[in-house]
Amino acid sequence: MRYHRIPDETVRRLPIYLRGLLFLSEEGQQNVSSRKLADFLGVNSWQIRKDFSYFGGFGTPGVGYKIEKVAKQISKILKLDVTQKVALVGVGNIGSAVLTHPGFRIYGFDIAAAFDINPQKIGKKINNVTIEDISNLGTLKKRKINLAIIAVPRGTAQPTANALVKAGVRGILNFSPCYITTPKKVKVITIDIAMDLARLPYYMPAS
Amino acid sequence: MRYHRIPDETVRRLPIYLRGLLFLSEEGQQNVSSRKLADFLGVNSWQIRKDFSYFGGFGTPGVGYKIEKVAKQISKILKLDVTQKVALVGVGNIGSAVLTHPGFRIYGFDIAAAFDINPQKIGKKINNVTIEDISNLGTLKKRKINLAIIAVPRGTAQPTANALVKAGVRGILNFSPCYITTPKKVKVITIDIAMDLARLPYYMPAS
Repeated sequence: MRYHRIPDETVRRLPIYLRGLLFLSEEGQQNVSSRKLADFLGVNSWQIRKDFSYFGGFGTPGVGYKIEKVAKQISKILKLDVTQKVALVGVGNIGSAVLTHPGFRIYGFDIAAAFDINPQKIGKKINNVTIEDISNLGTLKKRKINLAIIAVPRGTAQPTANALVKAGVRGILNFSPCYITTPKKVKVITIDIAMDLARLPYYMPAS
Repeated sequence: MRYHRIPDETVRRLPIYLRGLLFLSEEGQQNVSSRKLADFLGVNSWQIRKDFSYFGGFGTPGVGYKIEKVAKQISKILKLDVTQKVALVGVGNIGSAVLTHPGFRIYGFDIAAAFDINPQKIGKKINNVTIEDISNLGTLKKRKINLAIIAVPRGTAQPTANALVKAGVRGILNFSPCYITTPKKVKVITIDIAMDLARLPYYMPAS
């Protein structure tokens, strides 16, 4: 089965669903209705039904969706059914959080390399990953790592991205507080840990 | 003007646009076309035009959108045109990143309080915020803080949320690797720093 027609907005939501489904599965649940999943995740149930319909995920009336089956389908669509190796550049607060956060492994990521410029950090281990000198970035291609996370200060994000592209990286998650430009073939997602807070006040009653 | 009919999905994207617009404004730009903004942010230009149309944000052909004007409109819609005080609970890696990240201030947030359970952290200052004992949570109402960020270990996220709700908090951004339940009147957004990485492999060519 091919999944060519999944809209970007649905793709954006699939990791949210996958995380919730894996969580429910871990709790021992086998089925879930769209309404229950929606309540659990704080999203709309019609949105879930619509999004799942793109890949033929249909629930059974009165039973709901088979959690394990849908989770597997979503993993496959997102290409998370194989381990994806990732390099981290910048081991400051956010970088350290990335190295210790359980979430990456849950999605099937392996943070396989970490780089920093600070000699006091180089050689140290965080969560079994040894921090390397940033001059080693060129080794990524040989190590078959083509995904990277940038968490460096604003001024160095663009040169870091350039070096990653040169090293064969094809997808970048950018946590640095600025935007970076890359060739079209390299997909960049820039996020800001403050972004999600910025939509909370909208939903709060006038005080 | 009232903005009652803005869909949740648009509200979710508004902070992304706002951040980009503020960045461009800081760079000295005054106008931007939907196409240029879209390329800059890595989103669709038709989506921007549609989203902006919900609040009467119409560009001028050949000139584009007035950056400052649209940024102000979005700030107002998101209730970010007034300083929003926020409490942080849990000063680990993610919590420390929250305290030092410039992004919150850009959106108009003031991380006005931070709490932890670790005696070695209590009393320390990070970015001018003194870390307080978590037993002080009850003071939030008096301090008029009704937004909170949870960044505590999985097992303590729910009790932390309960304490925050009791202290009058009405909006929670949850970074803890689990889900929390709250009364309907309290809006919770649970995020995972790994979530955005999870949609990158989808866009990458088969290797």
